[in-house]
Amino acid sequence: MSTPSASAVTRPHLLFTCGFRHDEIVRELGSLVVELPVAPSRFFASDNFSGTHPRYLAAIEAANAGHVIAYGGDALTARASELFSEMCDEDVEVLFTFNGTGSNLVALGSLLQPAESVVCTQWSHINVDETGAPERILGVKLQDVASETAKLSVNDLHQLAHNIGNVHHVQPGVVSITQATELGTLYSIQEIKEIVKVSQSYGMRVHLDGARISNATAALGNSVETFRALTFGAGVDAVSFGGTKNAMLGAEAVLLRRSTCSPRAGYIRKSTTQLPSKMRYASAQFVEAIESGLWLETASHSNAMATRLYEKLKHVESLRLSPPQVNSMYPVLPLDVKKKLQEWNFFWDWDESIGQVRWMTSWDTSEEDVDRFAAGVLHFLAV
Amino acid sequence: MSTPSASAVTRPHLLFTCGFRHDEIVRELGSLVVELPVAPSRFFASDNFSGTHPRYLAAIEAANAGHVIAYGGDALTARASELFSEMCDEDVEVLFTFNGTGSNLVALGSLLQPAESVVCTQWSHINVDETGAPERILGVKLQDVASETAKLSVNDLHQLAHNIGNVHHVQPGVVSITQATELGTLYSIQEIKEIVKVSQSYGMRVHLDGARISNATAALGNSVETFRALTFGAGVDAVSFGGTKNAMLGAEAVLLRRSTCSPRAGYIRKSTTQLPSKMRYASAQFVEAIESGLWLETASHSNAMATRLYEKLKHVESLRLSPPQVNSMYPVLPLDVKKKLQEWNFFWDWDESIGQVRWMTSWDTSEEDVDRFAAGVLHFLAV
Amino acid sequence: MSTPSASAVTRPHLLFTCGFRHDEIVRELGSLVVELPVAPSRFFASDNFSGTHPRYLAAIEAANAGHVIAYGGDALTARASELFSEMCDEDVEVLFTFNGTGSNLVALGSLLQPAESVVCTQWSHINVDETGAPERILGVKLQDVASETAKLSVNDLHQLAHNIGNVHHVQPGVVSITQATELGTLYSIQEIKEIVKVSQSYGMRVHLDGARISNATAALGNSVETFRALTFGAGVDAVSFGGTKNAMLGAEAVLLRRSTCSPRAGYIRKSTTQLPSKMRYASAQFVEAIESGLWLETASHSNAMATRLYEKLKHVESLRLSPPQVNSMYPVLPLDVKKKLQEWNFFWDWDESIGQVRWMTSWDTSEEDVDRFAAGVLHFLAV
Amino acid sequence: MSTPSASAVTRPHLLFTCGFRHDEIVRELGSLVVELPVAPSRFFASDNFSGTHPRYLAAIEAANAGHVIAYGGDALTARASELFSEMCDEDVEVLFTFNGTGSNLVALGSLLQPAESVVCTQWSHINVDETGAPERILGVKLQDVASETAKLSVNDLHQLAHNIGNVHHVQPGVVSITQATELGTLYSIQEIKEIVKVSQSYGMRVHLDGARISNATAALGNSVETFRALTFGAGVDAVSFGGTKNAMLGAEAVLLRRSTCSPRAGYIRKSTTQLPSKMRYASAQFVEAIESGLWLETASHSNAMATRLYEKLKHVESLRLSPPQVNSMYPVLPLDVKKKLQEWNFFWDWDESIGQVRWMTSWDTSEEDVDRFAAGVLHFLAV
Repeated sequence: MSTPSASAVTRPHLLFTCGFRHDEIVRELGSLVVELPVAPSRFFASDNFSGTHPRYLAAIEAANAGHVIAYGGDALTARASELFSEMCDEDVEVLFTFNGTGSNLVALGSLLQPAESVVCTQWSHINVDETGAPERILGVKLQDVASETAKLSVNDLHQLAHNIGNVHHVQPGVVSITQATELGTLYSIQEIKEIVKVSQSYGMRVHLDGARISNATAALGNSVETFRALTFGAGVDAVSFGGTKNAMLGAEAVLLRRSTCSPRAGYIRKSTTQLPSKMRYASAQFVEAIESGLWLETASHSNAMATRLYEKLKHVESLRLSPPQVNSMYPVLPLDVKKKLQEWNFFWDWDESIGQVRWMTSWDTSEEDVDRFAAGVLHFLAV
Repeated sequence: MSTPSASAVTRPHLLFTCGFRHDEIVRELGSLVVELPVAPSRFFASDNFSGTHPRYLAAIEAANAGHVIAYGGDALTARASELFSEMCDEDVEVLFTFNGTGSNLVALGSLLQPAESVVCTQWSHINVDETGAPERILGVKLQDVASETAKLSVNDLHQLAHNIGNVHHVQPGVVSITQATELGTLYSIQEIKEIVKVSQSYGMRVHLDGARISNATAALGNSVETFRALTFGAGVDAVSFGGTKNAMLGAEAVLLRRSTCSPRAGYIRKSTTQLPSKMRYASAQFVEAIESGLWLETASHSNAMATRLYEKLKHVESLRLSPPQVNSMYPVLPLDVKKKLQEWNFFWDWDESIGQVRWMTSWDTSEEDVDRFAAGVLHFLAV
Repeated sequence: MSTPSASAVTRPHLLFTCGFRHDEIVRELGSLVVELPVAPSRFFASDNFSGTHPRYLAAIEAANAGHVIAYGGDALTARASELFSEMCDEDVEVLFTFNGTGSNLVALGSLLQPAESVVCTQWSHINVDETGAPERILGVKLQDVASETAKLSVNDLHQLAHNIGNVHHVQPGVVSITQATELGTLYSIQEIKEIVKVSQSYGMRVHLDGARISNATAALGNSVETFRALTFGAGVDAVSFGGTKNAMLGAEAVLLRRSTCSPRAGYIRKSTTQLPSKMRYASAQFVEAIESGLWLETASHSNAMATRLYEKLKHVESLRLSPPQVNSMYPVLPLDVKKKLQEWNFFWDWDESIGQVRWMTSWDTSEEDVDRFAAGVLHFLAV
Repeated sequence: MSTPSASAVTRPHLLFTCGFRHDEIVRELGSLVVELPVAPSRFFASDNFSGTHPRYLAAIEAANAGHVIAYGGDALTARASELFSEMCDEDVEVLFTFNGTGSNLVALGSLLQPAESVVCTQWSHINVDETGAPERILGVKLQDVASETAKLSVNDLHQLAHNIGNVHHVQPGVVSITQATELGTLYSIQEIKEIVKVSQSYGMRVHLDGARISNATAALGNSVETFRALTFGAGVDAVSFGGTKNAMLGAEAVLLRRSTCSPRAGYIRKSTTQLPSKMRYASAQFVEAIESGLWLETASHSNAMATRLYEKLKHVESLRLSPPQVNSMYPVLPLDVKKKLQEWNFFWDWDESIGQVRWMTSWDTSEEDVDRFAAGVLHFLAV
């Protein structure tokens, strides 16, 4: 994912990159840009451009009173851990962390044995979006395999298993899959089970990067049972459970199967700089999320908004849209249309060489936002 | 600092460790513990047992509206960076992070050259309270020197400089001092200047771990000018600026002198897992802190409460109290008194072999808390 | 490269893997295996199956007398360094090491800046044959690109340069090419110059893994001038200069351009465990190699033996042989023929899925060895 | 140990540092320096200033014929491993390596679990003489304890055990002791047993850095039984067995108890850059050493020469000599005498602040060398 080139910047975008809030820009430019369609109130750039759900802010405020033990010794953390174990139908070790990269490192660090590699796809966040953090912090080699869909196949595992037992080669030890993937695709429950089965046959363990596991769960059944079937029920050993992209304020969790993960996972979290001192704030949000079901509510809505956008634009063949499985689409746009659209309402390029971009919805994307955005796309394509 | 043994736990403490909030415990036990002095509403355990200042929560809420660029591309982050540069009277690179350990690693990683060590005292947080994170993440050796006061001396540097140029020995490259130190002591401006001068004469750079730099600044002049004189004005190259211990919600900053730190510091933050995606929430708090002076307000108050406690107990010689320089004291207590006091109102052991404990005030410690706590200490010593 | 499966082992091979020397096996089996062609006196498995050239052993013995300063403070090391600088026509830093993996790590470690990756091909030794040592020791990400010939192209660099300046992605900083490559192919002088030019245009530095640089030099001009033109003359910044595969006893060298490599390279060698205490023995061999030209003599011979083997078998189309550029070939064999040949005179599998193997000559391979081996291949193909 | 300052260099030393062999210098200067006592034929600087024992060179030459499997698949390696297991009376895993730093890292890497530290003394080679290699390669924290004798005590372990179970502190996991120590002192069998017992009571494992284990064995019983009693018989889990300082050509071994060390130790060796390709040469030397007893022969001789030197000088009180336990002494000399002696026959400074130096004998130190050196010391003290 590349940042927009300077040349792509015109006035509205400039204001935006200067840090004005979207509504301020719209207000400011209202009178000037009379010829443009009315822009949405939110961007379609990323689910981390959005803020925090008011119910999570309320949970934080409610948790704020008085003194509690730091570093997770508080009642909210105990309660949130309990809720996660119930969701997993297993006494998992629950470690709250600051961000997704941190979660992935804590999970992988808890699964790795000496001289082992992590198997992943070329698209995986750990491979391309963490600035080499796994190599730097864990000293581990990632063996990334080519994949058009960002999904790993059991064949990939059979191939890599060839090196098992040869002292000159790093030993494939942990398999990391992402659900939903970095390309917005999904593994079925059956596919995850098969990956786990083959992994186990080679003595490998399985990590699931669930930065968007809520969106995946919403899409594949929208229930706690679905979540369980996709993760520990399928034999996965460790899950990075994302909160921040799904309306939380800097809250992530690592869920670990105790029998296959290091008993030192808590120490690994600390030495990976991911132990929050005032942990109650993350815990309070997860308690709210699980008790009230808000995590599925926001994810379902985000998914639905992507589908709504697809429905409004699927007739435009040149966009080459596929029905979104979760909350993103990767259309192709003519260069001049792309530039104008980005200036009107910013989103990221995906593969500049073919004019591909990414449109992503968020928990707070409204139907009006979608309708306005679709209208804008049609407008600029028609001009 | 060790955790209390199970045997030290009686009913109030048990409720506490079960995660009940302090006020709930007091309420619950109110009728039962009639013979005990009224306990304070807050603990004297740590400044990270306290919550978030309401004005910081308000700043977070105000920052919550709408979409902004993630990872620091928002206006609040730009504003907070600007404010820090003004405070430092220098165009420093400002990197917001999640926690103190993370800040220290980002700062040190931006200062280190190949084959270099970090010089620090035996008491330093990087040496004893980060579970080996510097060694694991930076691959760096810490050369910790003995110190009764947790302060480093220029003599320590002269000693270690002996190894410069010898290929068998790690090269002392970065000096890390803590202000206020882990023992609650302070370096004077003059002392920091001398450490910088000697460090530079050996080609070393200087990092200041300012997890409690606000308390130190409040104690030594209580002004922006004092802060500047203690840090960049004294020639320090990198500062970990603490927010969380000083009433913020998970907000820390690293301040770097551009001419002596790596131009890749931003990448180092990312690969150390310390890049927040929704950065606006940390930035909003720092804007509030600096614009309104709240950072010094809370720190001064915390320091004053420690002094108040000292004044009320200094006549008890057996406690061996020294006047607190910032917000902590390290009294000595008879074993049975210590246990009863900890059950009544929890605090941490410091050196169990000599019955030494730590009392620490916080931004929200009230005068009533102090007066009740002092009364309790006198009560249990007298029994 | 995979180890032979147990099922591939019959009597001669068994003796071999039990550690009998080749001549002992031949002697022992002489009477029994009357129906087989006479086997060569040496294997065609690897250039590290051979021993040490007698002239290198003589140099070691001559260097053995008396006491000299350890760790490279001796006259032979000074002389060997001088000779290398003359060869490079530049005052390079010369660091003797124990093995090729060590050389590569010292070279890369001396070139890397924070947050940088190493760009290499999927076939590179650092990527597949070092058990993750670069990731573990340097904390670095390797970005391996697909390549049919094991050669890197400037297009690969243009592709990766796309990520420059984006904080979420590791920054391509060092380009590592292998000459001769792991598939026995060669870069021309012009190709290396172009890789250097493009690398420099992106701020990257270039490392050349020369585990078989002697074979490459012998093939492309057989002179010191050729070596220079392939390395520092072409703008390469660091060279791993192999000795062990070319008839030496555990002797390797790293050659570094002083202006682009860390002045701490010597410390990096030490902390990578690659500083020999009794360095005189490696240095003595390099003095002999360069002063007498033995390094090119042995490499030329090894290359010539591979060409001789090719000439004797090139008419067998099913082998799909290409003319060897240095000392290895990668023929395809029917499974049963392969097994019988390996039992008769061992060599390694290369790609078992297509029946591909590797034949490699060495400094001590004789014409008789080649003629016998070719006869054996024809014999087993005909049976 | 610091290198001599430039000002300390006069003619003989200059020749020496220019790389002339000792005998050449003596020959060259013979006529000029008539007023000086006749210098010894060897230095008293270090046991790695000496060369290789002729019987080891002969073993190397005998191993040189023909092709054998690389990376340890040869008969000599199998034989040497067998001999070590017999010596240990246990089926230990034997890994040959290049140097002592490498051995230590392979051993520690095979013993460490996540988040663990290595406990050692301030004098230990891993702490001061490996340029931070343990921190860099293993990412491990060393907890070095003060010790006047360079010996660790069980009290040190009790102290550090205090942190067990506290997530903020690195967990002491491996205890590393050196035998003979870096100060030339020895642990008794009983002392090692007690360290093992206490270590095991805390769940720690024990590594013995035996760079000079041969000298220690020679001093404490001079038999294979003594070696066993000092190591695996006492419960030690891993031994770095030194060869190079004891007359070998770059040959070291790591001995590992299979039940407490990682089954991936071989991979750890490879990824630590310590897997020799032509391993037969190290193995051949160890076969000679163990089968003929040469390892104890050379070590005993070296020890005896140190004792001889002590006997000749012990009456000089100002030197403050203690009887050497192995092959080194740490006398104190007036500054001018020290300089003159070092120019006459070089040795290293130890603690320049108090004029302390190190005298060390080697396997090839002759009685004449000792007698001449003692005479020289007396001469310069008297002048």
